[in-house]
Amino acid sequence: MSEKTIDPAVEEMLALAAEMKIETFWDRYQAQLPQCEFGLRGICCRNCLHGPCRIDPFKEGAQKGVCGATADTIVARNFVRTCAGGAAAHIDHARHVLEVIEKIAHGHAAGYNVTDKQKLENLAQRLGIQTKGKSEIEVLKELAKEVAKEFQRQEGYSKYLQLYTTKKRFEKLAGLNVLPPNLDLTITESLHRTTMGVDADPVNLILGAVKVALADGAALHISTDLQDILFGTPKPLFSKANLGVLREDSVNIAVHGHVPLLSAKVAEQAEKLEKEASSAGARGINVVGICCTGHEVLERYGVPLAQNFLGSEMAVATGALDAIIVDVQCIAPSLITVADCFHTKLITTFPIAKIPGAEHIEFTTENADEATNKMIKIAIEAFKKRDKTKVHIPKYEQKILAGFSVEAIVGALSKVDPSDPLKPLLDNIVKGNILGAALFAGCNNVKLPQDKLHVTMAKGLLEKNVLILSTGCAGYALAKAGLMSPEATFKYAGEGLKAVLTAVGKAAGLNGPLPPVLNIGSCVDNSRAVVIVNALADKLGVDAEALPVVACAPEALTEKAIAIGTWAVSLGIPVHIGIVPPIIGSNLVTEIATSKAKDIFGGYFIVEPDPAKAVDKLIAVIDERRSKLGLKTSKEI
Amino acid sequence: MSEKTIDPAVEEMLALAAEMKIETFWDRYQAQLPQCEFGLRGICCRNCLHGPCRIDPFKEGAQKGVCGATADTIVARNFVRTCAGGAAAHIDHARHVLEVIEKIAHGHAAGYNVTDKQKLENLAQRLGIQTKGKSEIEVLKELAKEVAKEFQRQEGYSKYLQLYTTKKRFEKLAGLNVLPPNLDLTITESLHRTTMGVDADPVNLILGAVKVALADGAALHISTDLQDILFGTPKPLFSKANLGVLREDSVNIAVHGHVPLLSAKVAEQAEKLEKEASSAGARGINVVGICCTGHEVLERYGVPLAQNFLGSEMAVATGALDAIIVDVQCIAPSLITVADCFHTKLITTFPIAKIPGAEHIEFTTENADEATNKMIKIAIEAFKKRDKTKVHIPKYEQKILAGFSVEAIVGALSKVDPSDPLKPLLDNIVKGNILGAALFAGCNNVKLPQDKLHVTMAKGLLEKNVLILSTGCAGYALAKAGLMSPEATFKYAGEGLKAVLTAVGKAAGLNGPLPPVLNIGSCVDNSRAVVIVNALADKLGVDAEALPVVACAPEALTEKAIAIGTWAVSLGIPVHIGIVPPIIGSNLVTEIATSKAKDIFGGYFIVEPDPAKAVDKLIAVIDERRSKLGLKTSKEI
Repeated sequence: MSEKTIDPAVEEMLALAAEMKIETFWDRYQAQLPQCEFGLRGICCRNCLHGPCRIDPFKEGAQKGVCGATADTIVARNFVRTCAGGAAAHIDHARHVLEVIEKIAHGHAAGYNVTDKQKLENLAQRLGIQTKGKSEIEVLKELAKEVAKEFQRQEGYSKYLQLYTTKKRFEKLAGLNVLPPNLDLTITESLHRTTMGVDADPVNLILGAVKVALADGAALHISTDLQDILFGTPKPLFSKANLGVLREDSVNIAVHGHVPLLSAKVAEQAEKLEKEASSAGARGINVVGICCTGHEVLERYGVPLAQNFLGSEMAVATGALDAIIVDVQCIAPSLITVADCFHTKLITTFPIAKIPGAEHIEFTTENADEATNKMIKIAIEAFKKRDKTKVHIPKYEQKILAGFSVEAIVGALSKVDPSDPLKPLLDNIVKGNILGAALFAGCNNVKLPQDKLHVTMAKGLLEKNVLILSTGCAGYALAKAGLMSPEATFKYAGEGLKAVLTAVGKAAGLNGPLPPVLNIGSCVDNSRAVVIVNALADKLGVDAEALPVVACAPEALTEKAIAIGTWAVSLGIPVHIGIVPPIIGSNLVTEIATSKAKDIFGGYFIVEPDPAKAVDKLIAVIDERRSKLGLKTSKEI
Repeated sequence: MSEKTIDPAVEEMLALAAEMKIETFWDRYQAQLPQCEFGLRGICCRNCLHGPCRIDPFKEGAQKGVCGATADTIVARNFVRTCAGGAAAHIDHARHVLEVIEKIAHGHAAGYNVTDKQKLENLAQRLGIQTKGKSEIEVLKELAKEVAKEFQRQEGYSKYLQLYTTKKRFEKLAGLNVLPPNLDLTITESLHRTTMGVDADPVNLILGAVKVALADGAALHISTDLQDILFGTPKPLFSKANLGVLREDSVNIAVHGHVPLLSAKVAEQAEKLEKEASSAGARGINVVGICCTGHEVLERYGVPLAQNFLGSEMAVATGALDAIIVDVQCIAPSLITVADCFHTKLITTFPIAKIPGAEHIEFTTENADEATNKMIKIAIEAFKKRDKTKVHIPKYEQKILAGFSVEAIVGALSKVDPSDPLKPLLDNIVKGNILGAALFAGCNNVKLPQDKLHVTMAKGLLEKNVLILSTGCAGYALAKAGLMSPEATFKYAGEGLKAVLTAVGKAAGLNGPLPPVLNIGSCVDNSRAVVIVNALADKLGVDAEALPVVACAPEALTEKAIAIGTWAVSLGIPVHIGIVPPIIGSNLVTEIATSKAKDIFGGYFIVEPDPAKAVDKLIAVIDERRSKLGLKTSKEI
């Protein structure tokens, strides 16, 4: 295996790409080396035209920016803006999904419907909406109005956040004055406080980052809830992962991006256009997923996963993709360069996300059916021009069992104990059959071999009986590595965990154990992990910070990952990252993030690029928490 | 004069500061040199953890960031975020003022009242609120509700923006799809589109920057309008400017920052505490202004101007300031270091703007009287500890006539022609007595001698009969240089302009001419200039892009200045800046900003650090526009 990836399909494609002189993430990263050490440390400030200012970390004395900002201030300000960038993406995501709910409620979104009526009713009731005797449309209207307040409220705090935070934790956050009133307002405030001459207090700034991260969290919850209502709450289903899911004989369409409004439509419309595909000489239309939106359609429709972020170029380089249909976030601009080497059509769809050279077909709630129809027809036309001599599909694919929404997990557990579904889970945590739980989330990062930390760490933790949940690019990594199949439980889970997963799987009628990695969805579905953690905490009468749970985003890349990580920390969850974040230019901020946060929030960041050491550190965290709960540690079990 | 400043008071203080080893903006700037050339060009990207990526401008071939972003994409993304930082500051500012309106309407803001009832009624009516037969509180409630929509609307476009944009221009902006629905949403969207893997199209991104800048503009209008309603619409009044306004025998309090909620209260409460000051041995309490909030209290109460941004440290270094009371924006963190050399108390007041070492007294709408009272008492206590041997007040001050709100300007003009106040202005523009108008706005920037471009250029333009409006730090520069007194008209204005200003001054009963520089207020009051420009445009049945008007922010520093400048450009106004903005790493973005924008918007950026050349360029722009209107140019008059 190379230093670039541990995914054999990507490895194979990279060799081919090199032959074809296709420039990749790794090539451009090499060309960028050495990277700027000021930027890497977070001590470069460009927030006004006095700058760029930078603090020399090796110079004696208290060097400052022109305005007088110290390294601490600069690093903290940059950190706030990073979280704001990430949260903004999720807030806009949530807004788009809400917009569809609103349009359905008012009869303007013919192409969309409520799929999970039960979830709609539950959520409405939790938001204080009387549902009895009301029509679905009426409930939907009230729900839309209520959720819209998350983007409008000028005073008070996010009700949605309150809905999904334990009482104790919410009070703590209120005491720290970090509760966002509305999500957009919080973004504005964060930019305001970080512009020149506003907030110079690094501690206050970090609390500002937490406020933004909490807005991020609310946006994740909104997105997941509303998406489940619209497209259905995931249930366990089998599918496949890795580039082997592409088909030589079919029209291959990759959906790439984040908001399922588009990808769900593509999946739906593709079925309707099978005939056109046949007429073009194809066996059919094969929709595959790249990045988060792939999870959205995997979890609900079984659409196979093609590649995570670092593999996105290589999916195109197979020459087998007829179209990549994208919306927002994590769409590398380089895709157009790769697509241009083939017949592949890159289709952008959102007004705020265009790529020069790509075909732009505006996608709206109103024209959803028509627009996706058009896009698929473009793919079919492209298929006709596909150069078969250029097609190379690596023969790697893994069976996966995915679709583990909270409802699905609780559903499986309820087969063990119908009256108290969480009990078997807790009992096994107490007994030590399950040592703890780890959420694998986040991205790929070219600075680390693709998937390596995800897979190595997951294997290490499974062996120690740590149950794993996954989302996003982390989910792809674990899926491609074969960790998401029932068989993987036999292969990778420690004895205790294996027994539990086998028992639950059997009770749930799955004809085998639950997989050792329960894929809960896309990055916004990290919200599902928080729901489970809070449910366990509530059941134990403790706060998340007491539970033997950790989160890992070992290959973190995006601002979103930093925002989500900070949210998890603020909820009391330790978060491992394998990439050194740009905060080390400030001892103070580094100490807050990696240590002092523990005193305040319970959660904190653990930075460790070595997967084996990271596993040891996470086991130590879990043991520390088990010990405090009076439970046996990994060494005592 | 040194290369640091043309302000003799600051010059004198800098010598003293050097003796006392007080570190200044200039010292820190020197220590920062050479600055990073990537940052200066805007070709450094830190929007994800693959970075920092940078594009070598001297390397052959199309170098790219790891994700594939080109220099064009990176520069454009950075530009969007810069505008967003600036707009966010103004949007939060507008929100704070609106909050007070809301609280008055609901009886929760005992310390504040409506001062300009007429403006309240006018604005309400313009916003479509029926005012007839309604009480002030009722109107206020409806107004608050209506303006709140600017922060809440999820569809459509900003009504406030429409109110203050000519019909033709508004349609053009609508056609370009750059109208913000609500202000906060637009900020979120701008961060979303610039996070990794979203918008890669530089042109689309620049339109995104325009959208943010339009949200900025709406925020400026809201701030000015509501502030006028609360504190009164400025009327011409005499005051003084420069450090000589500090008094050896008085308690000196500087208000510094932006939102008049605080500074107006300080001015008001100071009067009530004169007795306490006397008991402490002071002749009284002397409130002076630094930066924009100084304009707010100058324009309404005649509070003298002490210093603009680059002089803020030197105001403290006089040793004569007993307290600096600050809110948000442009508060250099270095102030605490200077204050610590003296008895001076630095008091921060807003939760999002703290400075380590400063005293923080939370200021809210509810505790406004009480909190400011406490702050002033701290100043009085500090006065007792003032070390007289350390006091050095440079004996420079200039008489100024300020307070030129639109209403005040129209009021003066209406004395010439009561039936058609704008007619004398237009007639004189047509005749060439007034060649055109220039708005001087924006900051100081340490990269240029303080005030030099403002003052040199203003003198150059006045000589050519260009009428000057001023705001913000530009206003301070021109005030300190003696350009804001009626006498200055005789000294600096060209013959035509002199005659007009003298005639209007006489008709208005001012006992002399209008000053050649009409100070219209703080940076948010740049909105007043747009109101005047649009009124002229409407009267002529043209758009702002046809008028012989320009804006200058020659010493631009903050993200706010860039946002405001971009707003002006989008309205059709050419904007001069003397600082090279961080866009030159992209030929495309540079070309859009300085040339193509002209075709689309009429407005564009003119970058010229040399004041004489800048004057020539601006006269050429004015002449070009006069010529198109069929008017004589400067050479023909």
